[in-house]
Amino acid sequence: MLIGQVAGEIFSTINHPVLDNWRLLVVDRLDETGAPTGGYLIALAAVDAGVGQRVLVLDEGNGARQVLADPTAPVRSVVVGVVDSVDLA
Amino acid sequence: MLIGQVAGEIFSTINHPVLDNWRLLVVDRLDETGAPTGGYLIALAAVDAGVGQRVLVLDEGNGARQVLADPTAPVRSVVVGVVDSVDLA
Amino acid sequence: MLIGQVAGEIFSTINHPVLDNWRLLVVDRLDETGAPTGGYLIALAAVDAGVGQRVLVLDEGNGARQVLADPTAPVRSVVVGVVDSVDLA
Amino acid sequence: MLIGQVAGEIFSTINHPVLDNWRLLVVDRLDETGAPTGGYLIALAAVDAGVGQRVLVLDEGNGARQVLADPTAPVRSVVVGVVDSVDLA
Amino acid sequence: MLIGQVAGEIFSTINHPVLDNWRLLVVDRLDETGAPTGGYLIALAAVDAGVGQRVLVLDEGNGARQVLADPTAPVRSVVVGVVDSVDLA
Repeated sequence: MLIGQVAGEIFSTINHPVLDNWRLLVVDRLDETGAPTGGYLIALAAVDAGVGQRVLVLDEGNGARQVLADPTAPVRSVVVGVVDSVDLA
Repeated sequence: MLIGQVAGEIFSTINHPVLDNWRLLVVDRLDETGAPTGGYLIALAAVDAGVGQRVLVLDEGNGARQVLADPTAPVRSVVVGVVDSVDLA
Repeated sequence: MLIGQVAGEIFSTINHPVLDNWRLLVVDRLDETGAPTGGYLIALAAVDAGVGQRVLVLDEGNGARQVLADPTAPVRSVVVGVVDSVDLA
Repeated sequence: MLIGQVAGEIFSTINHPVLDNWRLLVVDRLDETGAPTGGYLIALAAVDAGVGQRVLVLDEGNGARQVLADPTAPVRSVVVGVVDSVDLA
Repeated sequence: MLIGQVAGEIFSTINHPVLDNWRLLVVDRLDETGAPTGGYLIALAAVDAGVGQRVLVLDEGNGARQVLADPTAPVRSVVVGVVDSVDLA
């Protein structure tokens, strides 16, 4: 699991039907101090989050399908939480 | 999940039979602004897409098999959508 | 599996319910000599560990769900041990 | 899935029994133009291929076990096709 | 799957119980010529191997659990063979 920041949204009309039911977020990967690492991933908004918010992302298919309660969903990455704070010692 | 661009197609005659039923696309990985990152993957065209089109790719085996409706398919990467637009804030 | 060092904790109130039941640790990845590699991951504390402790982390979803005894948990990374020593020849 | 080139073979006598039934190929990873990327993987020859041949490799465990028709096989990477041509636009 | 070399062992007393039943090896990743790549992983010794030996490592959870014959084991990486030779053309 990793920390990301919502950078935007992706739109697709010709696609697998399950993708019509969820917002598809562009999420920048952050390091643990909150700085972007340069990478990103496309994640379904299982927890609602807006642009600029820091989020916890699960990048694993079987768990993602459990979150969506859809055992056939073609997904790998979902937003599972909004990050309130990261406390580093 | 990631954004890619169809760069071409791969042909194989000696192969696992399931691969005869689907086009095998060469997909360049793109960053979120649409620039190529230098990487690629080979993905089945579960959603039809032509050279130059931007696509959403799922890179995870169990979900890929669900998309193909074939629980025994030896696949990991499938095109699950054509990208209309990427809106970055 | 990899060796990490607990760097802190992440807090989230708006999230998938299972994440309320476990501490979410920020774990720095270490190389085998104990030096940080620059990477990190967010892992559930299936074994209790405090800041600064070296831990063994499992980064794989199906095994992580077994550790939590929750087949629906949206997780991928869990702390499965506290490292006493690493003996290199 | 990725394109590779068979570079050689690996031999092992003390091993998990399933590995006795398949050739273990050393496969160099290629980029989409056919140039080596510097990486490699060890893959079972589910489709027969000789040194120098370009192959399509599946790098995912559950699909690999389906190809071998052995649900308990400790494998992740298998050669699933010989590449005839890669057509880039 | 990849080729590695056993570099040492890791010890942990506070851990998930299944980890008490297996030696936890530190395995350096090798390239196909036998040179270290700088990476490592922690793997269970499903096949016995000593420091300095070259081994074949499976880095995939479901297959690893099959090797250990324990469907609940929190593991991802196991040593599945000792390498006798790598023949490159």
